[in-house]
Amino acid sequence: MDIKIAIGKRIKLLRNEIGISQEELADRAGIDRTYITSVECGRRNISIVNIEKIAKALDVTLSRLFDFSIE
Amino acid sequence: MDIKIAIGKRIKLLRNEIGISQEELADRAGIDRTYITSVECGRRNISIVNIEKIAKALDVTLSRLFDFSIE
Repeated sequence: MDIKIAIGKRIKLLRNEIGISQEELADRAGIDRTYITSVECGRRNISIVNIEKIAKALDVTLSRLFDFSIE
Repeated sequence: MDIKIAIGKRIKLLRNEIGISQEELADRAGIDRTYITSVECGRRNISIVNIEKIAKALDVTLSRLFDFSIE
């Protein structure tokens, strides 16, 4: 799977696990909501700085964010 | 620690563990050697696509690449 799509799905999964909206995630991460939407859809070649912001907003480590074996 | 610096150190550590040069890593990843140098120095806000290329070239999962608890 394309890594952009894989990370987008993973972010969406983790966001749904804690029951917050894209708007809430965007707020917590200090990132625009439309950017979160496009990341979750796999349309962004997201950078490490923004990945870290999203991981912090989801309260997960980067290692866990990238653990695609966890459903 | 700044995430750009943290990931740079981690890449350098993993590269040294398998005993390959920046040139060899660059070759394997299909990335310019000067780019690898600047990533390892923490000067690049590297994107997920290039992070994946480097992880594959180092033969580690992304989860392991981002496991900063491992020395």
